[in-house]
Amino acid sequence: MRKNDTEQIRLENRRLIINYLRVHAPIARIDIGKALNLSPATVTAITSELSKDDRIVEIPTVTDKEVIRGRPRVLIDLAPNAYFVIGLKISIGELRLTLGNHKGALVKEEIIKLQTLELSVDGLIEAIAGALHSFIAQLSGQQKPKAIGIAFQGVINGLTGEIIWSPAISGKHVNIKDRLQKIVGLPITIANDANCLTIAIRHKPKYQHLKNFSVVMLGYGVGMGMIINNELYLGHHGAAAEFGHTKHNPNGAQCLCGKRGCIEAYVGDYALYQDARSITPLPLEDHLHPSEESMEYLVSLASDNHPGLIDLLDRAGKILGFGLANIIALMSPEKIIISGPGVRAYKFLEDGIREGLESALVKELIADTTLDKVDWSEDLTVVGVVALALQSIE
Amino acid sequence: MRKNDTEQIRLENRRLIINYLRVHAPIARIDIGKALNLSPATVTAITSELSKDDRIVEIPTVTDKEVIRGRPRVLIDLAPNAYFVIGLKISIGELRLTLGNHKGALVKEEIIKLQTLELSVDGLIEAIAGALHSFIAQLSGQQKPKAIGIAFQGVINGLTGEIIWSPAISGKHVNIKDRLQKIVGLPITIANDANCLTIAIRHKPKYQHLKNFSVVMLGYGVGMGMIINNELYLGHHGAAAEFGHTKHNPNGAQCLCGKRGCIEAYVGDYALYQDARSITPLPLEDHLHPSEESMEYLVSLASDNHPGLIDLLDRAGKILGFGLANIIALMSPEKIIISGPGVRAYKFLEDGIREGLESALVKELIADTTLDKVDWSEDLTVVGVVALALQSIE
Repeated sequence: MRKNDTEQIRLENRRLIINYLRVHAPIARIDIGKALNLSPATVTAITSELSKDDRIVEIPTVTDKEVIRGRPRVLIDLAPNAYFVIGLKISIGELRLTLGNHKGALVKEEIIKLQTLELSVDGLIEAIAGALHSFIAQLSGQQKPKAIGIAFQGVINGLTGEIIWSPAISGKHVNIKDRLQKIVGLPITIANDANCLTIAIRHKPKYQHLKNFSVVMLGYGVGMGMIINNELYLGHHGAAAEFGHTKHNPNGAQCLCGKRGCIEAYVGDYALYQDARSITPLPLEDHLHPSEESMEYLVSLASDNHPGLIDLLDRAGKILGFGLANIIALMSPEKIIISGPGVRAYKFLEDGIREGLESALVKELIADTTLDKVDWSEDLTVVGVVALALQSIE
Repeated sequence: MRKNDTEQIRLENRRLIINYLRVHAPIARIDIGKALNLSPATVTAITSELSKDDRIVEIPTVTDKEVIRGRPRVLIDLAPNAYFVIGLKISIGELRLTLGNHKGALVKEEIIKLQTLELSVDGLIEAIAGALHSFIAQLSGQQKPKAIGIAFQGVINGLTGEIIWSPAISGKHVNIKDRLQKIVGLPITIANDANCLTIAIRHKPKYQHLKNFSVVMLGYGVGMGMIINNELYLGHHGAAAEFGHTKHNPNGAQCLCGKRGCIEAYVGDYALYQDARSITPLPLEDHLHPSEESMEYLVSLASDNHPGLIDLLDRAGKILGFGLANIIALMSPEKIIISGPGVRAYKFLEDGIREGLESALVKELIADTTLDKVDWSEDLTVVGVVALALQSIE
């Protein structure tokens, strides 16, 4: 949909350039034009305007190979402090607040323990509003945020912000967006954690060039995000890419969603921990919510050559690979990237994933879709929710 | 990707308007502008140009309710005979040639019996070229085609036209497009039959408004096409939407692709006929290629209350519904439309489909995705391949 109207085109091109810079900067003007199919005159006009607004800075490069015909090549980048946003991640028992700058870098963080599952909707809104107020109160005048992004585990309608179902809160079909926006006085965008992870991964230099790819997030459950034609795909009802609830086996393992045989019911942390406890002594805790420490302990036992656990993880890998075959058959993505806290066990999953995939799908359909793993050394959903908040106000 | 260049924008808007007219005409200029977000001036300029080229005609309407402020409302439509294209459908043992006019109506047809499976690639190209030449030789000067679309059963790379695998021909990874284009001297587009069906369904008034939907084609195998954001989705390697080879059951029924447990190995004609023969006498023929008559006989036995066959079709419906759950979980389409020759048994599949879907996926994820059936009273892949050929030259 486009309006053949100069002002509309200018605004759309401006938005395209800012979002392109957010992923690819620092970059030369000419390369922006090539990538977005915009004329040099358009790129120059828009970047001049952004420069006047202090949104971008110029970075002259002086290394030999960058010098073209004796003139240093000038790269442009987003000005880090042009404005700020807040990224808020809501997990079971925890609010994690982050201040992100105009370039998407995380410059401040606060973690608040909160019994999210015990709160009513009113109580949740009150607690989030209170946490945001006290976080914002500590910021300098320049750092005052212009927008807020909120990431939830679970099934979120990314179009409306409705929390359809989340393990972090009680109740289904919960709407907090409109009331929170009124209280806080800032635009709020709510997304599922796997979609935030997908946005963060898309910003990584290694994956910037991909137009169609899927991200599978292993952790408490099994989430997914999809980029289709360079855009995050949300589907008709806003909650697409629920890979964890695609099926491995009719009448299979019990899933937390209420149905049986979902991929998540074999590969999610809760499923792995429950199964592992049947074969080896593990700390006695609510197996539906195993802590990161317990999951790391489980993997450490496998690393110490516990044959039962190695086998358990290998079978989980096969089931995951079997599930990835369905993503490839339907979507034919350029790449599937596996990340999330669950990659802690990746070395035990890896062979099984490949084996499961190849047992499920003929090589003509796997074609050149490749698999990659992105480490979980930092929580990329937080990076992603900040990027989402930045995008929301362009 | 857009170029901020007046001529580029004009050409793109022209293409948008023609393709919109092909689906929605007859329509008023003002409604085209609204739908495509184009200014009235732009629509008028482009439609005047198309009118001068004899590409469109004006249709004054004089019914009472169409009269606005005393002036009859003028609708525009594509001129039927502005140019013609050929749609060619290649099935096992048959070439079906169709002449389509500028509006996409089928005006002439010829069916040629040909032992496609016994031909070498050279023999196939020769036979197709010969059939096209003699078909074109019979046409009037005005009817000479400007482009050719070819629909194949099987796995086709819709980006390059490569026939990755097709039950209609022997050999894998077969390229006929470039050589055929040279011989015939016309641009050729090759697509999978389910994608052609999807294009045809998209042109139906009932489905014109859908932006994200999937079409499942039941027949010899189980095919699929997807419209994502108003575009046919082909995926990274051009052969996405292979729903028939998504998985129902690890180590399940043997599929013709070589793997086990694919949806198609339970729901495709060949699977149904093979299973039906185990429970009731049926004409002895190659069960991997049951004829339409044999499949209709199978369904007629079910209609005569054959309990075993009713049960067999009901179970196939459940497996199909179970598979549709994966499409919905991943893609969240607005609608899934089931069509193809296999809908001959739809009344026996229908309850099972719903039951399978609801047993597989929680209602929060089914959300408002609905199912529809489109009858197979005409071969819609032929309508679609003509539409594809028309689109290919705009």
